[in-house]
Amino acid sequence: MKLYTFSGAPNPRRVTLFAAEKGIDLTLLEVDLRGGETRSAAFRAKNPSGKIPVLELEDGTCLAESVAICRYLEALVPEPNLFGATPLETAQIEAVHRQLELELFAHIGAAWVNGPIVAAAGLVKPIEAQRARGEGLAHQFYDRLESTLTDQPYMAGDRFTVADISALCLIEFAGALVKLAPKPELTAIAAWHERVTARPSVQAEKG
Amino acid sequence: MKLYTFSGAPNPRRVTLFAAEKGIDLTLLEVDLRGGETRSAAFRAKNPSGKIPVLELEDGTCLAESVAICRYLEALVPEPNLFGATPLETAQIEAVHRQLELELFAHIGAAWVNGPIVAAAGLVKPIEAQRARGEGLAHQFYDRLESTLTDQPYMAGDRFTVADISALCLIEFAGALVKLAPKPELTAIAAWHERVTARPSVQAEKG
Repeated sequence: MKLYTFSGAPNPRRVTLFAAEKGIDLTLLEVDLRGGETRSAAFRAKNPSGKIPVLELEDGTCLAESVAICRYLEALVPEPNLFGATPLETAQIEAVHRQLELELFAHIGAAWVNGPIVAAAGLVKPIEAQRARGEGLAHQFYDRLESTLTDQPYMAGDRFTVADISALCLIEFAGALVKLAPKPELTAIAAWHERVTARPSVQAEKG
Repeated sequence: MKLYTFSGAPNPRRVTLFAAEKGIDLTLLEVDLRGGETRSAAFRAKNPSGKIPVLELEDGTCLAESVAICRYLEALVPEPNLFGATPLETAQIEAVHRQLELELFAHIGAAWVNGPIVAAAGLVKPIEAQRARGEGLAHQFYDRLESTLTDQPYMAGDRFTVADISALCLIEFAGALVKLAPKPELTAIAAWHERVTARPSVQAEKG
């Protein structure tokens, strides 16, 4: 299977880490994002929304959306389980994962979209009040995460799941490009980060 | 099973429609949202994030987040299938559902949170530019949906799925409370709306 990706972007990284945890080999095809390749007709034929990542199956079928691709990979290679092994655990992981995506991702996204890098690229007219609100809400969410990770080692409980992959990709993106890393005094988040980045899937990224 | 709900709120409605499609009986417990019940210690013990819906199982275990609850119900009662019957279909439905949630929901949410009803309740200081951007992006998304629904009868293809339930709840909320209904000239969306609201699960709500 081929994965259309862009190094450093958080969403394709979710898929490559997920595949590495499963031991699935993907052929990575780097897309020329800055050169406009995702807006080309050839790419839009693979994903009409013009976004990466896209997974292309052997028969040419294309799948979009990082977490949708991860669900497909989970069905192909069920072990190690990353989305939940029982109905109850599946729902509990989904609840945590959704709160990360619909709250933390949204807050960091608001700070990113209205921040200086996107403004300099001329893509969106920044709304400063929205950027500032996103920043404040992201830090509030980090405080809640600190409390969660004081009580348990991983985002959704006692074991590593898709929620940890998503959180890692997003939090590192926030730190690198949005100046929105968790504050260093949040030591439970720092310990989680160390625990997760020690995994072979993450270590292997350094190549 | 008990569902803590609030009549008229779109997220609990997703769960009640989903359960109705499955033929699952839930005991509905109306929460006094305006009176602050979701901020009470008793409610926070069921869901620390203080949101509805919450599903309480027979053993007292509580599940939060509407779509997480729906996944639990899907595992309990697999038919009729609403999340996808094969790995490929599951991923395709998930991709459509995510685009609805991460794009349309986010745009309508921005218009709602920064709109007059929330401002009058004194909950959030409105950012007018963010409200206006949300409104514009929601209408852009509706234009894309019109194109999709010109080619296929349901959000994710040929059959009714969880993506239709989410879209119905959100679009009716947007029309009723955010003045963000799809424009009437979007006739494929109107035909989809008629198709979906004719279902027994939706008709039974009027009961």
